[in-house]
Amino acid sequence: MAHTVREKAKLLARVRRMKGQMEAVERALESEAPCGDVMQLLASIRGALAGLTSEVVEGYLHEHVLHASDETARAEAANELAQVLRTYIR
Amino acid sequence: MAHTVREKAKLLARVRRMKGQMEAVERALESEAPCGDVMQLLASIRGALAGLTSEVVEGYLHEHVLHASDETARAEAANELAQVLRTYIR
Amino acid sequence: MAHTVREKAKLLARVRRMKGQMEAVERALESEAPCGDVMQLLASIRGALAGLTSEVVEGYLHEHVLHASDETARAEAANELAQVLRTYIR
Amino acid sequence: MAHTVREKAKLLARVRRMKGQMEAVERALESEAPCGDVMQLLASIRGALAGLTSEVVEGYLHEHVLHASDETARAEAANELAQVLRTYIR
Repeated sequence: MAHTVREKAKLLARVRRMKGQMEAVERALESEAPCGDVMQLLASIRGALAGLTSEVVEGYLHEHVLHASDETARAEAANELAQVLRTYIR
Repeated sequence: MAHTVREKAKLLARVRRMKGQMEAVERALESEAPCGDVMQLLASIRGALAGLTSEVVEGYLHEHVLHASDETARAEAANELAQVLRTYIR
Repeated sequence: MAHTVREKAKLLARVRRMKGQMEAVERALESEAPCGDVMQLLASIRGALAGLTSEVVEGYLHEHVLHASDETARAEAANELAQVLRTYIR
Repeated sequence: MAHTVREKAKLLARVRRMKGQMEAVERALESEAPCGDVMQLLASIRGALAGLTSEVVEGYLHEHVLHASDETARAEAANELAQVLRTYIR
């Protein structure tokens, strides 16, 4: 069972929390809150997003690369992971 | 006028697009989409968030540090900016 | 043959270039060059380091995870890679 | 006095430590050490570089933007800082 299915409830809760943070940015912009508040909210979303992404990437590495069903699937997963890592290691 | 007020409509549009991307992650998890899709969606949100944050930080630097109303306001803004930068330069 | 052995000359050239950049920072500090110069030099090293790291990580993923000699070696390599990725995805 | 002059000895010590780490990467490549060792060394340099950069950026923000000699110098420093921040917030 894929990691994102096994941990579905926990991952969904984290995504919804981030959506709530995004809505807080929306409200801050609409109500013309101090620019510093918007900046701090964005920094906190970044932290939450990094935490979620780190967990999903690690789950992907173990589920689809380490425990691939066959060598073709493993190679495809390794390539997909490499593509995503390029957006982070820069 | 603060940068986030002057550019309010444009910034709100970007935030709402990111919220839409977040909802796409939510649907992907709910529908038990392939783990790789979730990973790619999260990477694209990261890019959008970085772009928005970079603009808000730069607006803050110019609006509240460079063109502060007085030296006390400038010092407070510089400290708030320094705090946020620590979460990025690591 | 490991990626870092096969690409040894190319990787060594990149590391020596970065060492040269680091020596430029050293000279800038010693000669009390403008602070902005030191800041720009550090930013350029970061870019070079990210490029080199991205290549080594990708080589590692393919060499030691995808084409591991056996399942034990694969599991160890996946864990080592996961550990390194945690320092980047944050 | 500029931050990089006032803290010269401390900053030079950090740069020389990083140069030592870079030489360790050089030796690891030359001696064909395990690829994982190279990867871990690069990750540790990244951490050291981020710490040094964060300190230099913060010193720059306070020295050259907050306490600029005049408004022209302040505007130039703010622009130089904005340029460097774009390489980090992405």
